[in-house]
Amino acid sequence: MGDRPGVGILGMGSYLPPEVRSNDYWEGRLQRRDEVQRRGDILAIERTAQGGESALPRPVAEAMAALGDDDLFRGARRRHVLADDAHAADMEVEAVRRALEDARVAPDEVDLLLVHSLLPDRLNPSDGPAIVDRCGLSRAVAWSLDVGCASFQPQVVAAAALLRAGVYRRVVQVCSTASSRFLDYSTPASTGFGDGAAASVLGPLPPGYGLLGHWQRTDGSLREGVALAPVRDGAPQRRWDRCAGPVRLATFDPAVGKLAGVQGAAFCREACLGALEDAGLTLGDVSLYVGAQSVGWFVDACRRALELPRERAVDTFAEVGNISAAVNVYNLQRARADGRLRDSDVVLSYSPGAGLTRAAVVYRWHEPHSRARGP
Amino acid sequence: MGDRPGVGILGMGSYLPPEVRSNDYWEGRLQRRDEVQRRGDILAIERTAQGGESALPRPVAEAMAALGDDDLFRGARRRHVLADDAHAADMEVEAVRRALEDARVAPDEVDLLLVHSLLPDRLNPSDGPAIVDRCGLSRAVAWSLDVGCASFQPQVVAAAALLRAGVYRRVVQVCSTASSRFLDYSTPASTGFGDGAAASVLGPLPPGYGLLGHWQRTDGSLREGVALAPVRDGAPQRRWDRCAGPVRLATFDPAVGKLAGVQGAAFCREACLGALEDAGLTLGDVSLYVGAQSVGWFVDACRRALELPRERAVDTFAEVGNISAAVNVYNLQRARADGRLRDSDVVLSYSPGAGLTRAAVVYRWHEPHSRARGP
Repeated sequence: MGDRPGVGILGMGSYLPPEVRSNDYWEGRLQRRDEVQRRGDILAIERTAQGGESALPRPVAEAMAALGDDDLFRGARRRHVLADDAHAADMEVEAVRRALEDARVAPDEVDLLLVHSLLPDRLNPSDGPAIVDRCGLSRAVAWSLDVGCASFQPQVVAAAALLRAGVYRRVVQVCSTASSRFLDYSTPASTGFGDGAAASVLGPLPPGYGLLGHWQRTDGSLREGVALAPVRDGAPQRRWDRCAGPVRLATFDPAVGKLAGVQGAAFCREACLGALEDAGLTLGDVSLYVGAQSVGWFVDACRRALELPRERAVDTFAEVGNISAAVNVYNLQRARADGRLRDSDVVLSYSPGAGLTRAAVVYRWHEPHSRARGP
Repeated sequence: MGDRPGVGILGMGSYLPPEVRSNDYWEGRLQRRDEVQRRGDILAIERTAQGGESALPRPVAEAMAALGDDDLFRGARRRHVLADDAHAADMEVEAVRRALEDARVAPDEVDLLLVHSLLPDRLNPSDGPAIVDRCGLSRAVAWSLDVGCASFQPQVVAAAALLRAGVYRRVVQVCSTASSRFLDYSTPASTGFGDGAAASVLGPLPPGYGLLGHWQRTDGSLREGVALAPVRDGAPQRRWDRCAGPVRLATFDPAVGKLAGVQGAAFCREACLGALEDAGLTLGDVSLYVGAQSVGWFVDACRRALELPRERAVDTFAEVGNISAAVNVYNLQRARADGRLRDSDVVLSYSPGAGLTRAAVVYRWHEPHSRARGP
């Protein structure tokens, strides 16, 4: 490992839209909880907890208890929301520009752009071509590499392989979420999401730095649990090509959606141990954990399942909400700005994505700059 | 090159749905051509040709002339159409199964599935998890690697890098098109499309075989030319997240759509020469050309721009129509079945995709099996 050429992150950039929405927004807007439950809101996991916490795995139960149950917003306080006349690509373009600046890489040095947008501005083409054009990535090809909320880790694995194989020299990855485009703001679940984008520039690093290992798996038998689908008369539509309503986060199988939540921390542990084994490391080597903050207790449940002390996990849910795959780079930046991410630190990053796909990477951080800037 | 480990295709599989639609279907169904033109049908390139062929580059003009202008269907005779109650994933699952069988690879040997569906059955998750589940790819992760109609070549480049870097040992790629889900069958353009899926299994090959070179570029300034968008009152909608109508192939900028068509053969030549240069080869080394058959004259115009004799280009447009990114593997299979693809042949494959992305790969075919089966 020590003498293998390193490949990984040269710089990072994030963008959160300027409009901040506080919890006040929902006053008088939320439907009665029993109505939402009848309709199958995505909060199935919360219902399970209220129905009988004893059935929950301990890390989940403890993390939920730590959050307290007198808070309608389940730990969410603020989130950023994309203006109605702005586009997902606007966030992505700004995040990519900031990452290029942080990495001190010129736009025309970029060979490949990897994009995941939840939702993209267009069905097809993806936001990639708009980013290429607006950021001046004049030599690049844009691929949409989309594994839902688990897109960050596959993008890093793909970039590292392309760099190691000598196919490309500079790769940019960007993940964004414009969840305000697909949420029903009369449901409790809508309080836990925010908009934003985060990008990184990947290239060669000194030996021993960068991506060290990974673990990824798709369990397609759970694919009906969480989906984006058009909704008509309150019901998600399976045939979205004939869509006749707004796009919504929905479930076609609440029991499976619940399972993915209840098992969330155990799923995290399996993926993370797999990535550490691939890297030849153990949980004791981990300096920092970043990953999905799907709901208010999720990061805490994951770090409990990983037996990591609280200070080794980055959790910004209260401030930005669930920002999907953008959370990984965003939280890394936050940790760097706070002095919690230093050269040679081992970072563990995990995300589950609808499907269900689970992806974890283990990474040795390289800090090339004297400055350490926040998002 | 000769001593570098080879990586590439171990087996191929295609699936076309059983329903065959002949030209009779459109009798009495087509709108008057002038009405369609007023509405901005995607056939802008055809209009240009009829307006003044002298302005067209020679390969395009010659290919159009060879097609003749007394044929309303511009070379299309048959195409396969997905049954209304079938899904894109049904086609993809069958193509993947056939590719695994052809490659003699077991489902649980597959590490990674790369998917592109035009359109997928769901907005999110992609069809990947369904394919993983139904094909028994029990160890695999599914990534959606989507570059529109240009997805095949990036999937091969990504797979080869992951194989070369030792990240994975067996990768399956699959591209499908369910264009019957997004076409308006009252427009002339609808006659040129068909449904289908094609897959291949990639893994290690003897030195000198497999992927030799590639060229890819996204010119995002052309992204308004061709798009998938919901249509309301006959007009494509930019905000598809509030979609209130069926999804359609559309243009937000007919002039750009036309440019991409007029320049289509020149774009092909630039990409193909770039890929050949990357491989250290020239056009004289090319045994077989496969690639996009967007319209009836497209393969012919490309092979003319590449100065290749007619017999070196595979063209199945008359039988299957534009089958998007699935055309590359499908036409390779057809060539193999016809005895036109033999061990050590150099294959050139090119596709443009909405965005506009252009992608070409150069490939040395390895024929491991005594049998040579068609699609």
